[in-house]
Amino acid sequence: MKTEGKFIALTGGVGGAKLASGLAAVLAPEQLLIVANTGDDFEHLGLTICPDLDSVMYALAGINDSRRGWGVKHESWQFLDALKQLNGETWFQLGDRDLATHVMRTHMMAGGSSLSQATLRLTEALGVRHRLVPMSDQTIRTFVKTAQGELPFQQYFVAQRCEPVVTGFHFDGAEQAGVQADLARWLGDEQLCGVIICPSNPFVSVDPILALPGLRTTLAAMEIPVLAVSPLIAGRTIKGPAAKMMAELDMPRDSLGVAQHYLGLVTQFVLDEADAALAPAIQALGMQTLVTPTLMRTARDRQALAHTLVDALS
Amino acid sequence: MKTEGKFIALTGGVGGAKLASGLAAVLAPEQLLIVANTGDDFEHLGLTICPDLDSVMYALAGINDSRRGWGVKHESWQFLDALKQLNGETWFQLGDRDLATHVMRTHMMAGGSSLSQATLRLTEALGVRHRLVPMSDQTIRTFVKTAQGELPFQQYFVAQRCEPVVTGFHFDGAEQAGVQADLARWLGDEQLCGVIICPSNPFVSVDPILALPGLRTTLAAMEIPVLAVSPLIAGRTIKGPAAKMMAELDMPRDSLGVAQHYLGLVTQFVLDEADAALAPAIQALGMQTLVTPTLMRTARDRQALAHTLVDALS
Repeated sequence: MKTEGKFIALTGGVGGAKLASGLAAVLAPEQLLIVANTGDDFEHLGLTICPDLDSVMYALAGINDSRRGWGVKHESWQFLDALKQLNGETWFQLGDRDLATHVMRTHMMAGGSSLSQATLRLTEALGVRHRLVPMSDQTIRTFVKTAQGELPFQQYFVAQRCEPVVTGFHFDGAEQAGVQADLARWLGDEQLCGVIICPSNPFVSVDPILALPGLRTTLAAMEIPVLAVSPLIAGRTIKGPAAKMMAELDMPRDSLGVAQHYLGLVTQFVLDEADAALAPAIQALGMQTLVTPTLMRTARDRQALAHTLVDALS
Repeated sequence: MKTEGKFIALTGGVGGAKLASGLAAVLAPEQLLIVANTGDDFEHLGLTICPDLDSVMYALAGINDSRRGWGVKHESWQFLDALKQLNGETWFQLGDRDLATHVMRTHMMAGGSSLSQATLRLTEALGVRHRLVPMSDQTIRTFVKTAQGELPFQQYFVAQRCEPVVTGFHFDGAEQAGVQADLARWLGDEQLCGVIICPSNPFVSVDPILALPGLRTTLAAMEIPVLAVSPLIAGRTIKGPAAKMMAELDMPRDSLGVAQHYLGLVTQFVLDEADAALAPAIQALGMQTLVTPTLMRTARDRQALAHTLVDALS
């Protein structure tokens, strides 16, 4: 691999964060813009919490807890324990170390910083050299439509453990929001070689980004490839409710279903070797396919996948 | 001791918190109103922090760290460590457990609760049966006048470790503030037997309370006794800068100096056995004196002193 081109990665939390850190290992800082979903963000106890942005930031900084799959390593839970004693809301797990991020960000934003500015200061403090930005500096909130009515995302995801049956999604504020400034600039950069949709939940991690005004049509109209990595392997997700959602939405619960979801946008679809048999059906949708190991257990796995993607786009 | 009368205790942090917990051990909840100084309160990282109120609350709940002298026992410092990594402000020590108090209070007050209401909810959650209130529900901020100019209290106290030479004090907002509602009501209660000024710093713990409009004149005009416990033993404080301040203000650096400071207000002055020789001079100021052990090392010490005071006032 030898490229000086630029790449944009669109990502949610855990799975996307792994690929983002792989891309950061194989690309120079000036070659990569990582754009995180902010539809999961919410206000909790007066703090602005950005789960996907933080998962990616911690992964890029090498301080994520890879065993637990979220949050910071060497975490402790004294704050939460004391909060419980005070009859505070403890349904959302706030670790003592993680809390520093939320307090700092909330304080910076109360002082007038944008989410992009706050993110830049936090990532720089953690020694992250690659640029990580929120998808927008305006507030967008994902709501999950269920048989029980519309639930705010964290209510569905954490408090109700993804149990309600999903019927659809709503990205509140997306229509009034603007695409983050760096993302808008990079989309017009002639050195841009490709856009990578990370193996994140299509409905609640990627679609909120694509819901930003004009973004989907801009991406679809570009001459450069838009590549998506399937978050499913053999019909299952590594983590998260994507497969469960697909079943509830009456979609094929596999990588073909994911490819169909991205129809008209994605030009290259990456699927795991375990799903090689699906490649012809995906090609029939008009997408190129790339069959490769997509499970990222180790740093080597992450970098290998990143290499493969960058090679395919260069 | 057998009294059904009511008592008001005016207090700052550490030393006052000890006596407050002693009084709570010997008086029924309906007999005691504990009023804490809020001049030390400040905003830090977007959180409303009330050091004296919290010291008293933790002492009443039995969860104060008596060895360190402030904060919560079994405290940990992971938040502060992570904050340092994020280049956040770490000059003020925020423990992981203590932080739950500040986050809860700030969140309640952002939602419209008064400081009194927030304090009531926090103390109730901690099982505190006696009533603890801030001196006022309006913002009052203590500034320390020094050779280097006026410093916000925590800047002087924590960041500069009480090193600047003190020339005076200023209680910003006191003139526009109102006396807390329960305090105002109790001052008019005919069952009130006495007001106890705890062994707290006269300048920065007690004077901010006395600076509330009308409070000092109300207390001085009442027929019930106003009792003060000297925070000095043999010219030294157990903790805090009171003695250093007295020297810098050219006052006698002993309990006589404290008594002189309270002239015209206090009718009964309590001093330690080590200072018995000062009693005649204090009596000459027109105050009754009570010489008794005032050092509170144990719960038994705290309760013994509380008993002695209540007996003297009943």
